[in-house]
Parts: sequence; structure tokens; C-alpha cells
Amino acid sequence: MKFQRDILKDVAGYTPGEQLNRPNIIKLNTNESPYPPSTKVREAIRAVTDDEIRKYPDPMSVALRGACAEQYGYADESWTLIGNGMDEILAMTIRTFVDPGQKIASLDPTYSLYKILVELHGAKYVTYDVNDDYTLPASLLSSAAALCFVPRPNAPTGVPSSRKEMARLCESFKGIVFIDEAYADFAEDSCIDFPTKYDNVIVGRTFSKSFALCGCRVGLAVANPAIINEFCKTKDSYNMNVVSQVAGLAAIQDYAHMEVNAEKIKTTRARLAKELRALGFTMPDSAANFVLAQWNGISDAKTIFEGLRDQGILVRYFGNLNGMEDKLRISVGTDAETDALLAALKDILAGQYD
Amino acid sequence: MKFQRDILKDVAGYTPGEQLNRPNIIKLNTNESPYPPSTKVREAIRAVTDDEIRKYPDPMSVALRGACAEQYGYADESWTLIGNGMDEILAMTIRTFVDPGQKIASLDPTYSLYKILVELHGAKYVTYDVNDDYTLPASLLSSAAALCFVPRPNAPTGVPSSRKEMARLCESFKGIVFIDEAYADFAEDSCIDFPTKYDNVIVGRTFSKSFALCGCRVGLAVANPAIINEFCKTKDSYNMNVVSQVAGLAAIQDYAHMEVNAEKIKTTRARLAKELRALGFTMPDSAANFVLAQWNGISDAKTIFEGLRDQGILVRYFGNLNGMEDKLRISVGTDAETDALLAALKDILAGQYD
Repeated sequence: MKFQRDILKDVAGYTPGEQLNRPNIIKLNTNESPYPPSTKVREAIRAVTDDEIRKYPDPMSVALRGACAEQYGYADESWTLIGNGMDEILAMTIRTFVDPGQKIASLDPTYSLYKILVELHGAKYVTYDVNDDYTLPASLLSSAAALCFVPRPNAPTGVPSSRKEMARLCESFKGIVFIDEAYADFAEDSCIDFPTKYDNVIVGRTFSKSFALCGCRVGLAVANPAIINEFCKTKDSYNMNVVSQVAGLAAIQDYAHMEVNAEKIKTTRARLAKELRALGFTMPDSAANFVLAQWNGISDAKTIFEGLRDQGILVRYFGNLNGMEDKLRISVGTDAETDALLAALKDILAGQYD
Repeated sequence: MKFQRDILKDVAGYTPGEQLNRPNIIKLNTNESPYPPSTKVREAIRAVTDDEIRKYPDPMSVALRGACAEQYGYADESWTLIGNGMDEILAMTIRTFVDPGQKIASLDPTYSLYKILVELHGAKYVTYDVNDDYTLPASLLSSAAALCFVPRPNAPTGVPSSRKEMARLCESFKGIVFIDEAYADFAEDSCIDFPTKYDNVIVGRTFSKSFALCGCRVGLAVANPAIINEFCKTKDSYNMNVVSQVAGLAAIQDYAHMEVNAEKIKTTRARLAKELRALGFTMPDSAANFVLAQWNGISDAKTIFEGLRDQGILVRYFGNLNGMEDKLRISVGTDAETDALLAALKDILAGQYD
């Protein structure tokens, strides 16, 4: 390709989880919510007028930023930023705070998109192995990177480091600490208050998981106003369409709907973990809407993944990703979906002994 | 600001046109369509289901890309890319094809966002003055830049260079030629077929102007599949939300609705130009949905701009932008809005002689 940048020669791009178009697929592979969004979201979308479609949207998403600030205990919208999904927030963070050639740190294992975004920017990706209990390695604290990405809970393990460990990181790390709280609504606590204490912290949230708005692409960053001001320089002027702005606003204002669904998912998660362990899987306790189930019995994780797929049940198998060969990441679905998954697993595992 | 990149020290960010919230404002300042989108758009938005909101959207916008390919005479979606508005397409073009430090060329005057995007990437912005008749300067053809942005019709002049001149540019220029056709639906011809002939050409389109979808943020790039493939490496995985995908699809499939409105705008544009000239303004013939009206009579353009604003009519005044001090960019509105504008102008100009 004649016009190719050197930096893109070996880049394949991010591979999203499979989205099969067959009917009656049980999708437990992309951590979507198994429950619908608030009915207020659909109402808000249907109330969008021709005039709102015809005109430019609010470039600064002020109403949605203000509602998020209020929900999370901040004075006003100057502490918040809305992005076209958390993906845009992540990419903007790199572009806003890191020069090409600088280092960006994260964990291993972690969310695989970070590495791709870092490489696309021409920055250097450095990783620190999580501890044996999957928590934050002390070595990260003294990293000389300009930025670090730390999901809490981490993906794909589902394990959160303690708030105390996170506070130590924010105090010690010299650059920007991005705490990716995509899954925080399924955990027992969060670090959403950290920006009041640390001027180097950005907390990222997504409306895709707990609020069930994957389709609308709404991401949130919370940070001190000086950080938000830098973001405003680099963001696309009109990065948020009007429909997603009103959908996000309706979702955050029906917070109770999200909380009820998050509780249901946590209850189902406990049952799923218990039953998977009874089948012989091992896994850390998850604080997210998925579990990372390791299989060391007869057969292997890939065969189980394919067996489920044959039965129309999708889970995530990361293949040859470091340390993931024997593991499946399984989203927590409805109770009925979980029943179907467990029945299919029993069927597949019983087959191994035939 | 402690974590500020050097590159952002002097960046102020793009200033979008004013969006006043007073009622009964006549907005002729951001080149929005004065006519509503197709009723099919609203129907498509209202038909979006909770399940579509809950799940990830198609990361590749295949249906919309296919419909655009079909409309513009291309074999399939491999020739097209959809972005979160033309803004994202422009930013992606820079990130995908230019290394920081390289040169990016454009015209002077032209769309002011290019310069900002180039600076945000750490590339060097070089400009070539348009000819006296506002057309493409020959000097651009031998520019050593990696990429050039050429709007056709140009903004804010509304003047298109001929297809022949554009073809010479595409043949001579060694890098990527981005032909920004944001306003092409209001012109007599376009270069939408150029990607079949030139492997270094990207044609950009927006659904914001002629299709009246500003609020949905839908941009289109047409280029050969090797170019599109590079874009796919750098684009945010899920850059297009599901609602904007179906809105764009409904809009492109009701192409006749757009054509009827574009014709109405062209008719009003001719009347607007004629009446403005009768009032003493001068301007080049516009092939866009705005005119660039120059005022060299008593008083000045800024005073006229402020006078209109006092009467609730917004037009665009670029202030101290090179060569723009004596000019107003006025969007073509409905006939009634145009009547109101002309009446207000007569009033303001009559006042100068009191």
C-alpha cells in the first residue's frame, strides 16, 4: 500500500467480539447487559424532533455532563467529559496527554484495546504483570510512563485492586492515571471520587454495560477541570450526536433502573461462578459482569468454546493471548441464558468421557 | 497545566458557530439545511428497538456503506467508510496517512478546521492562496505535502474549481488528495467518481448539509479499497452508533427528498445573491448552500453582523481571519428566512445614511 504509514504496517486493528446474525443466539461474549435500557431512554429517543436532527447538536454535551456531575458528586460539568463511547475517551486520553515516542503503561493481562491505541499513536506500550491474586503489581508505581491505564475491576479477570492500592498508585505515579471503571457498577466500591483528591487521575465510565446503551456509544470521563479543558482542545467539535446525548441523559436520570439490573447481574454472577466451579472450572471472584473461567480438565478451553458455539452460545475465547489459552470469558446473562449455558457445558463435558 | 503536551500549549480548539437558545432565532450561520430531513429518517429512528440499543452496533456500518456505494456508483462497501460526522473522517485521514512532522497542504482561504486538526497531530500546515477568481492555485500541484485538503466547492467562498483542474491536481500531487465535498449536492457537478480513476483520492461527504442530519453526525469517505482498509486500522472500533446508522441509511435511500431540497436551496441562493448585489454587496457565484458577501460601503461587515444579531438573525463573521474582515458568510435559508434577512439588511443599511 503506497501511502501506508510505517506505524500501520503491522497493525491489524482491534477485533470486536463476534456478532452473529443467526436468530436465538445467546450472546455471552461482549459483556453487554442482558436487560433492556430504561424505558425513559426509548422515550427520549422517540421524542427527538426533526429540528434537533437538522441542527448541530450541543458540541459540549452540557446537559449530560451536568447530570453525570450531579450523580457522581461533582460541582458542575467542568469535571466531566462525554465521548463517543469509552473507546473515544481512551483514544482522546492518549492524544491529549502523550507525545508519540513516550511510554504508556498498563497491566498484563488487561483490556486488549489499550495496546492497539498506544501503537496507533506511535507511543510505547509497557506492561506490568498482575500479582498472583490478579491485583496491582507494585512495580507499576515507579513506572516512568507518561500515562497508565488501570481498569478496576480489571478485564478480563474481573478482579479489582483495593481502593488503598489504587490511592498508592495515584500518589506515586508521576504521570496521568486513567482508572477504567467500565465495570464498576458491578463492584462493591469505586474510585469515582479520586479526581477530587488527585489532579493526575481520570476516571472513565461507559454507559454500555450497566446502563445497556452499547448501541448509543456514550462514554464518560471524570477529572479535574484543568484535565477536562485539555480534552476540549483535542476532541472532535461535535463528537456526540443529539440522540445519544438525550439517551445518556435519560439513562443517568433513571439511575435506579441501572442499580436494579446491576444487582440482578451480581446475583446471577454468584450462581454462575458456583455452578462453574462445581463443573471443575476455577476462577477468581469477579466484580464485573463476566467471569474468567479456567479449564484444566480433559479437553481444552478452545474445544469447549467451539462446542458452545455449535449450540448457539457465544463466549469469548482469546486464543493465543498470553496466559489465556485455558480460559473462557463468560458474560453474565439472564438466569435463563445462564441455565442454557450450564446445560450446554454439562453436555459438552459429559461428551469428553464418552 | 502540569500534564500539558507542548503541542497543545497554543491550541485553542475549533470554535463552532454560535447556537443561541433564544426562540425565533433565524440561524444562517452554520450552513444547516433549512428543511427537515426525510420523514423516513424519523421513522427509522423511532423504529430502533431496545435490543439494538442494548447491543453493540455494527462496527463496520456495512448496510449504510453498501447503500452509499450503490448510490454513488461503486461496486460494494469496500469503497466506502462511515464516520462520526465529516469531522471524524478528516481527523482519521490525517492520523491514517500522515506522520507527525510531515506537511499537510490546503488553500487560503478554506475551512478553518483543517489547520486545527493538522496542529493537533503535530504535522505542519502549509497553505496556497487561491487565485483571484477563487479557484485552485497551480502552485499546489507541485507541493511536497503528504496530504492536501481541497474542498469543492471551497468554503467559505462557495466556489468550485473545475473537474479538469481537480483532475490535474490528482495526477500531479504526489500524496493523498482529500476532496471535501461537504457542499457538492448544491453544485452542478462533483468528483465523486474520482476514486475509480485515482488511487490517491479520498472524496469526503457529509449528511449534515443536504440531508439535514447535522444532529446525527454522519460522514462518508469514498476511496479505493486499499485506502479504506488503512482507515479500518485506525478507526474507533464502534465509531458509529446504531441510531445514526439507521438514520443515514434512511436518508440515502430517500435520495429524491434531498434532491428536491437542494434544488429549492439553489433557487433561493440565486435570489439571495441577486438581492444582496442590489444592496451593494459583492460576491463570487456560489455553488454551496451559503454565499460569501463582501461589503465595501459605508459602515463595515462587523457592524452589519452585529446589527443582524440584534434582530435575532445569525450569520457568520470570521473577524480577523485573513481577508475576511469585510465579509459575511450567509447560509441559504428558507424563502421566509431570506425575506427576513433582506428586510433586516435594508433596515440596517438605511440606518447608515441617517
